[in-house]
Amino acid sequence: MLADDRLFDPDPTQKALAMELYARIRDLPIVSPHGHVEPALFSDPERRFGNPVELLIQPDHYVLRMLYSQGIPYERLLSQAHPRQTWQLFAENFHLFRGTPSGIWLTHELEALFGVTEKLTGASASRIYEQIEAALLTPEYAPRRLFQRLHIEVLATTDPATDPLLHHQALRASGWDGRIIPTFRPDAVLTLDAPGWRQNLDALSEISGVSIVDFKSFVRALEQRRACFKSLGATASDFGPPQPTTAWLSEREVGGIFQRVLKGQTTREDAARFWAHMLCEMARMSVEDGLVMQLHPAVYRNHNPKVTASFGTDMGFDIPVATEYTRNLRPLLERFGNQPEFTLLLFTLDESTYTRELAPLAGAYPCIKLGPPWWFNDSLNGMRRFFDQVMETAGLYNTAGFNDDTRAFLSIPARHDVWRRASANWLAGLQVRGIIDREEAESMAVDLAVGLAKKAYHL
Amino acid sequence: MLADDRLFDPDPTQKALAMELYARIRDLPIVSPHGHVEPALFSDPERRFGNPVELLIQPDHYVLRMLYSQGIPYERLLSQAHPRQTWQLFAENFHLFRGTPSGIWLTHELEALFGVTEKLTGASASRIYEQIEAALLTPEYAPRRLFQRLHIEVLATTDPATDPLLHHQALRASGWDGRIIPTFRPDAVLTLDAPGWRQNLDALSEISGVSIVDFKSFVRALEQRRACFKSLGATASDFGPPQPTTAWLSEREVGGIFQRVLKGQTTREDAARFWAHMLCEMARMSVEDGLVMQLHPAVYRNHNPKVTASFGTDMGFDIPVATEYTRNLRPLLERFGNQPEFTLLLFTLDESTYTRELAPLAGAYPCIKLGPPWWFNDSLNGMRRFFDQVMETAGLYNTAGFNDDTRAFLSIPARHDVWRRASANWLAGLQVRGIIDREEAESMAVDLAVGLAKKAYHL
Amino acid sequence: MLADDRLFDPDPTQKALAMELYARIRDLPIVSPHGHVEPALFSDPERRFGNPVELLIQPDHYVLRMLYSQGIPYERLLSQAHPRQTWQLFAENFHLFRGTPSGIWLTHELEALFGVTEKLTGASASRIYEQIEAALLTPEYAPRRLFQRLHIEVLATTDPATDPLLHHQALRASGWDGRIIPTFRPDAVLTLDAPGWRQNLDALSEISGVSIVDFKSFVRALEQRRACFKSLGATASDFGPPQPTTAWLSEREVGGIFQRVLKGQTTREDAARFWAHMLCEMARMSVEDGLVMQLHPAVYRNHNPKVTASFGTDMGFDIPVATEYTRNLRPLLERFGNQPEFTLLLFTLDESTYTRELAPLAGAYPCIKLGPPWWFNDSLNGMRRFFDQVMETAGLYNTAGFNDDTRAFLSIPARHDVWRRASANWLAGLQVRGIIDREEAESMAVDLAVGLAKKAYHL
Repeated sequence: MLADDRLFDPDPTQKALAMELYARIRDLPIVSPHGHVEPALFSDPERRFGNPVELLIQPDHYVLRMLYSQGIPYERLLSQAHPRQTWQLFAENFHLFRGTPSGIWLTHELEALFGVTEKLTGASASRIYEQIEAALLTPEYAPRRLFQRLHIEVLATTDPATDPLLHHQALRASGWDGRIIPTFRPDAVLTLDAPGWRQNLDALSEISGVSIVDFKSFVRALEQRRACFKSLGATASDFGPPQPTTAWLSEREVGGIFQRVLKGQTTREDAARFWAHMLCEMARMSVEDGLVMQLHPAVYRNHNPKVTASFGTDMGFDIPVATEYTRNLRPLLERFGNQPEFTLLLFTLDESTYTRELAPLAGAYPCIKLGPPWWFNDSLNGMRRFFDQVMETAGLYNTAGFNDDTRAFLSIPARHDVWRRASANWLAGLQVRGIIDREEAESMAVDLAVGLAKKAYHL
Repeated sequence: MLADDRLFDPDPTQKALAMELYARIRDLPIVSPHGHVEPALFSDPERRFGNPVELLIQPDHYVLRMLYSQGIPYERLLSQAHPRQTWQLFAENFHLFRGTPSGIWLTHELEALFGVTEKLTGASASRIYEQIEAALLTPEYAPRRLFQRLHIEVLATTDPATDPLLHHQALRASGWDGRIIPTFRPDAVLTLDAPGWRQNLDALSEISGVSIVDFKSFVRALEQRRACFKSLGATASDFGPPQPTTAWLSEREVGGIFQRVLKGQTTREDAARFWAHMLCEMARMSVEDGLVMQLHPAVYRNHNPKVTASFGTDMGFDIPVATEYTRNLRPLLERFGNQPEFTLLLFTLDESTYTRELAPLAGAYPCIKLGPPWWFNDSLNGMRRFFDQVMETAGLYNTAGFNDDTRAFLSIPARHDVWRRASANWLAGLQVRGIIDREEAESMAVDLAVGLAKKAYHL
Repeated sequence: MLADDRLFDPDPTQKALAMELYARIRDLPIVSPHGHVEPALFSDPERRFGNPVELLIQPDHYVLRMLYSQGIPYERLLSQAHPRQTWQLFAENFHLFRGTPSGIWLTHELEALFGVTEKLTGASASRIYEQIEAALLTPEYAPRRLFQRLHIEVLATTDPATDPLLHHQALRASGWDGRIIPTFRPDAVLTLDAPGWRQNLDALSEISGVSIVDFKSFVRALEQRRACFKSLGATASDFGPPQPTTAWLSEREVGGIFQRVLKGQTTREDAARFWAHMLCEMARMSVEDGLVMQLHPAVYRNHNPKVTASFGTDMGFDIPVATEYTRNLRPLLERFGNQPEFTLLLFTLDESTYTRELAPLAGAYPCIKLGPPWWFNDSLNGMRRFFDQVMETAGLYNTAGFNDDTRAFLSIPARHDVWRRASANWLAGLQVRGIIDREEAESMAVDLAVGLAKKAYHL
């Protein structure tokens, strides 16, 4: 079913070059430096995946939201009661994924991982369910076994600052040789106006052993957590501020904000100023401890309050907003932008910033590298736009390879495969236009597949 | 002259697939759910088109503004005095339309409708004028006859809330079987700071039979008009706010604004707040009466006051501005976003919102569908960008097929033909890349040509 | 090394058409209506270029910033001490330019101007250095000789309002027949809050012979300078405001701002208001004296203060910001937009404005023409995006051909060659899709290469 030459541009000359380049990188190990897979999948050697619905549908908000957008209620999709009925519903609506990345990934997973070569439809739903179910019962489909079969060299998870990292500790203690590392993501304690901030702060106090009574002790607690993450293999931190605004507040101002929030008196303005200052503080810590700093800004989280109230967060209703980097990042860059030991990885959901802001910044500041097309843009067209709009100005070597950024462990190979095909296709396009030669294309292909990510994330 | 394989990408494999798909949809009937053709063309069975200048140049602001932009005065183009001279002037400047949608449409119209196969130039101008003029005198070129010859299944006009819809009534009364339906567009009474608002309000009072003395009676009058439009076949409403801002004002606030405007005391801020509230009110009415809600926001109307003063509105000087949907639509969506019986069709002239805002919104909210590339983007490249930037995230089935949105009746087949060719070309591109198969491509092609529009507009 | 068919799309049919079109324009003379080459290169007939590093690396901030972005200190790149070591460093890092415009230009320069056909690497660095160095010693490589060998028909420099234009005077006096003309760029005296404004004002007073004591005398001094520039062949003025905001201030307001700045009391708000008013004043002068008005707005200059402090301006740290034209230009256009004798050339680094604002404005206002893709977008992909996003709405004849905008004299032919290839490729794409015919494509190709620039700049 899956054609060898899929996703490549159709011109025969370019396609032949692309296929040669792709053959060079297809089987390289997978480096996954940013994602949301649960470490609990691997900490217990006996752990198994659930049924096909628990595996492929329910944890994947890309899939869920598309079905919801066509009027299929979440109640039906998220029920634990009748997985075969849910699978049937999914199969009958699989046409909704035509031409989408989810469609490409799912088709790839079904064939490459489970040997499913017939199309998923209402008619084939049952057969395919059983085929997957049977496979999942075999030892070959245990998470740890799959980690190795899929040639994953390293997998980074994303973990709150307050996470005790018990699974990461258990993983290390178990002696298993799969490399799975945490990433420090303290958003929940940096967003002063988020629900539950106070409980998160208390959790931070407890886990760090630092009694947080003021801004200084808050900073100490964060430093303590970073050291702990680092001791378990972390090489990076990650931040999702409402905008990439940065500012250096006076000790007095930031202290005042912190006292107000402790008294439950915070304002939206306080919360925004605090984020801006904390990005600078976090950059300062990165300069000191060497953790890479990732920015994933400017998403309106939980845009649909009815869905959030009934089904929680990460249900497909995080919607991007326009983003500004040039002015916003300047205070941070003024202090640390020229430090070669500092790595600031920028991501965007606002592609109008590719040529206007991100590529010019990355093509000048030694600390900046650009992350790959993110989330909604992690797609064949999203990659093409990224290559076309970023590379001429930023230069390949100021980019950071690929992130799969996924909660869906089994989609990792499919996602990397799309990236490797898109990369080969882009490089073949440069080669067929006489812009690079074959030797250069090969070297760039290997870097795109593996090298740039390892370098950017210090792996 | 017109090549069978025009507008398709050149790769032979992809082109062959595209031509097969196009052959499948080329002759499907035309569904035109949004446009600006005058219903008066059809209400009188004896109605004939005027001369070629009245037909092809003077009502088409796409054509006029391009000529004006090159220093040709509107006085010369809009004169009724010497149409053959105006035609000559147009023909001598026809090179200005090279590579533009107007150039493609006009060339298509001339050949497909009038059999003109020579290029329009100063030298051929007279001959072509006479050829068109002669055709227009025959019964085959009567508007009603053309409606049928062009296989138009349904044509929606756009009509002010205050329009008595006399032509629509006459059409129904005449027993003619062409389906022409009105669309409810109340912008003139919703824009408090527009010139003539007070007269429009009085006209609304009179036509609705509701004495408008306060906000409540204003709302009743609008509801009355919607019912009247619906009784004449309308399935949709349409709005052109300065931004897609929505807000729920308190009864007291909106009542106060309305009282101020009745006293002639409105401010820009009042006018903006009023639009924001009325979009929510109109969504509420759509939930109740089932009319589809279209948003065509964010155009700076009548940017050139000298042209407006001398020649009126719709003379090519409506210029788009940056648009924000994520934050602006939230109050409306919070209330109605999850209602599957509600259809909100979003359009944009700000393509930076395709991947950033519109596709993520449409790919999650059940009520949202995306209208096709609009106005300046109703073009071969505009369609390619729409397919490339919208479909992966929104999914095909959250889009609404094609609108021709034209005042120029004779351009309708040409415009749909560009869309059908662009659709076939896009789908062939997916097929040649192994993303969809032939069966899927055919089904999607038919939906793009006809099915999605009929479904989105409840036709 | 350089393939004849480089930069063209790979489809054989389209490529063959592109190559025919390119052959038609390849050897047309170069018209360079906007750039930053030093006139001093040509005023002295004995002038010679320096060593390869002084020639190709040190004056080119496109090259410098890419090396800096990868951690190579400016101290090493800008040293005069050991040019061969600097060249070696550059050559060892030449892979950084893979796929970038600088890589394409440098490769073209090395082969076409110096006969270098081996790849620049650490291993070949010395040989190539010597090859260039030897060439530069020959009379064939004198700047005046190169100007003629490269078939440059006209070259416009960019000069501050306070520049005495001594080199331009010397050029005229010398009787040499190369056409090199100045361009009036008064940014330094229009930016009230720029460092050195007061000294620039004093210089303006002195050079103009107008004692500047108030706003009126300031305007007189500028008018005097424009007349002087014009007398030395200038046909254009150029402006780089922080945004393209325009406004007509009252005589009293602008006079008040000017008095405050004379007393050293200016504010950011004053400075912004002053720019907005001066753009209108400058448009008024253009209407009167016929100088074309260019706008290059919305760049955050000197974003990296450490680099500016140590190495000065134009070191790669000017970063674009989001730009608004529709609302901002309206006050200026309201007064002068319909004047056919006025030419306003708009440029942008914010490509989201191409379809949204710039193409609609240029496709309607007689005074507006669009300049080519600028700076970071002066690239193969930048040109493709410009053609794809601008031409359908603006129309080819509302654009202004190519600018090389370079300080690097030897890169001029390479830059024009990329534009000519991109143009031929775009037109071949239209032709192969049946949108234009061969005759139209040829005529458009010649206009893109030379005609549009000559017309837009009154050359």
